[in-house]
Amino acid sequence: MTILQIGAGGVGWVIAHKAAQNNDILGDITIASRTVSKSDAIIASIKRHHNLKDSRRKLKSRTVDAYDINALITLIQNVKPNLVINAGPPRVNMSIMEACYQAKVSYLDTSAAVDLYSEGQQVPQAYDWQWNYRKRFKEAGITGILGAGFDPGVVSVFAAYAVKHLFDEIDTIDVMDVNAGNHGKNFATNFDPETNMLEIQGDSFYWENGKWEQVACHTRMMEFEFPLVGSHKVYSMAHDEVRSMKEFIPAKRIEFWMGFSHSYLNYFNCMRDIGLLSPNAITLQDGTVVEPLKVLKTLLPDPTSLAPDYTGKTCIGTWVQGKKNNKMRSVFIYNNADHKVAYKDVEHQAIAYTTGIPAITAALLYFKGVWNGKGVFNMEQLDPDPFLELLPLIGLDWSVKELEPQSPIINILK
Amino acid sequence: MTILQIGAGGVGWVIAHKAAQNNDILGDITIASRTVSKSDAIIASIKRHHNLKDSRRKLKSRTVDAYDINALITLIQNVKPNLVINAGPPRVNMSIMEACYQAKVSYLDTSAAVDLYSEGQQVPQAYDWQWNYRKRFKEAGITGILGAGFDPGVVSVFAAYAVKHLFDEIDTIDVMDVNAGNHGKNFATNFDPETNMLEIQGDSFYWENGKWEQVACHTRMMEFEFPLVGSHKVYSMAHDEVRSMKEFIPAKRIEFWMGFSHSYLNYFNCMRDIGLLSPNAITLQDGTVVEPLKVLKTLLPDPTSLAPDYTGKTCIGTWVQGKKNNKMRSVFIYNNADHKVAYKDVEHQAIAYTTGIPAITAALLYFKGVWNGKGVFNMEQLDPDPFLELLPLIGLDWSVKELEPQSPIINILK
Repeated sequence: MTILQIGAGGVGWVIAHKAAQNNDILGDITIASRTVSKSDAIIASIKRHHNLKDSRRKLKSRTVDAYDINALITLIQNVKPNLVINAGPPRVNMSIMEACYQAKVSYLDTSAAVDLYSEGQQVPQAYDWQWNYRKRFKEAGITGILGAGFDPGVVSVFAAYAVKHLFDEIDTIDVMDVNAGNHGKNFATNFDPETNMLEIQGDSFYWENGKWEQVACHTRMMEFEFPLVGSHKVYSMAHDEVRSMKEFIPAKRIEFWMGFSHSYLNYFNCMRDIGLLSPNAITLQDGTVVEPLKVLKTLLPDPTSLAPDYTGKTCIGTWVQGKKNNKMRSVFIYNNADHKVAYKDVEHQAIAYTTGIPAITAALLYFKGVWNGKGVFNMEQLDPDPFLELLPLIGLDWSVKELEPQSPIINILK
Repeated sequence: MTILQIGAGGVGWVIAHKAAQNNDILGDITIASRTVSKSDAIIASIKRHHNLKDSRRKLKSRTVDAYDINALITLIQNVKPNLVINAGPPRVNMSIMEACYQAKVSYLDTSAAVDLYSEGQQVPQAYDWQWNYRKRFKEAGITGILGAGFDPGVVSVFAAYAVKHLFDEIDTIDVMDVNAGNHGKNFATNFDPETNMLEIQGDSFYWENGKWEQVACHTRMMEFEFPLVGSHKVYSMAHDEVRSMKEFIPAKRIEFWMGFSHSYLNYFNCMRDIGLLSPNAITLQDGTVVEPLKVLKTLLPDPTSLAPDYTGKTCIGTWVQGKKNNKMRSVFIYNNADHKVAYKDVEHQAIAYTTGIPAITAALLYFKGVWNGKGVFNMEQLDPDPFLELLPLIGLDWSVKELEPQSPIINILK
């Protein structure tokens, strides 16, 4: 058995550590990335941390340009993996998926291939390109598992679990995501600043009463009492899983909410107001052409550098309301992850940790022959039970909290 | 008679308009700048606004690199001005002054030649380089008038007036500067963003009990009731005139204070925290090298573009406390300038207006043979009476307000 991981950023870091901890099942591991030194740093961390379970299994690095389909095919033919795990940014999904199709090898990723700043690539279109491969993957006899992170990913499994076990009828699904951790910096992003800032400044899309609603960022807010980390203001935001949930789970409203502190929003608004979050190139007085967002990316701390001093917890979950046995019901299915626990386990912070662990959980189910249907699948389509049984063993607990049924108080701002 | 103006930014705009309104005394006007289109835009504005008093006098543009001493000398020999008015940024003072010395022509500027981000060029050293020309200017039989803007400039004349007429003994001089205007933008600077941001983020220097004190920016604050524009928080800041006042006016404490709104400070702090105010080059992922501050300069609105919609007033003055006839005395000598009045007069805003008018007032006194001693002079050294008599006629009123003597309540922040 062998896997090929493409990408060596924060999520790739955690995926590689967790794959190594489970290499008795996953086999040899190859980590390929544009900059081989990043893969080598991960391998050094895995060895230093004694996270290679079966030391007879290989762990190696390779260089690859994830946009280059032919280079990817050559790499796949060389490594001969049973599964390709895409740990790169969403913009490389299409080339890797095409290479997997041509090389006839199964594929897994953690978020949808959308260019967050382009027209026609927003949430209502998320997954369109990747769903085009459903028939081809089925005919090729290979498996594609899409969006196997935490959100999208585990929150989608929580929704499937609610459908299967907890509800007869669903009214609303609110995905709630707050990072109540503290990295000690004035301002920093928890993953690639470019992807993060594009995601946050985009309009929010939510699904309500059979159609898409589009609103400006940070204009729909509610306060939510999160287990363990307390009450936080959360804001409606565009997120991949609203699209896939809408496709597979009937509900009157489906929406994604993210918590932002007053300080975070203040920095964000300042930067946006002065034009620093724009991906559109500007020309300086001396003729130099730069994209402001890439300047910001260079100025901000490397997200990986935050991990050693990160304290506190995250809470991400799916709040489902509807009916069971003709009675109103409200449940919050969630995980709390701790930044220090994540660092102790894999030398990284909890944001990457909660994304990487579900990917390896899904990969293990694929290897065990439980999640290995032929075709392309989102997490909502697969049986939630074996996944939720295995997830805590790989590192993420989950709980169901029964709430008082209520109409969410949504504040419309500005 | 003829004058040569070098520089065609915001202050140059006002100086040229005011020179044109007084060209029966100042004669022909040549405006030289690196970008000739900027001079031509000013000339078009003067003509459109019918500000050329004597239409038989010439008004023309020329190109010059203000760093190039030989090019400046050639230009001076060509134009043959009675006075060179330096309306450029402080960093070109030395080359223009040297060219004036070599070409034997009198010189006037509006602020000190310091590089605000370099070691050894702070307030305690301001004017050192320019004062080195005292003997040479005297021997050459030419006049140099330094810092003839509002602050430095008029506030220094106010201090000289207080010494001459209002006090026997001075305890404290606090220069107070607030712009209570509104340009309708989220964030913008009133003059060159690069100079402005360097000035504001630098440490403050004030003179107290015979020595220099240095404190971090925005860490000394007081609230002051300004005539017409009300109470504002002002912060101790490094400013040229603290150096020249310390040299020529005996006082126990001399300090400069500038008003900043909560919103301004918030943007400023955000930008500083993320590193955007740094003049030190950074290298982007693709190898492009940029200075963050120059990126910000390109992102922010052109200060000149703010003028048409600017409303509200400024208040700048000198608060002097001390003794007269053995009794404690406290006076605030000040001007209120109105952004709309400035725009109506010269198609620019009040910040440039209050800097440009004093320069032309001083130039007129030079031409009238009142302020034309041989050597190099700061405004504190010259007779304040003729200047304060002429200033309102050129466009800026001034008043003396008697206050209750008091110990200023200075708040030490952070």
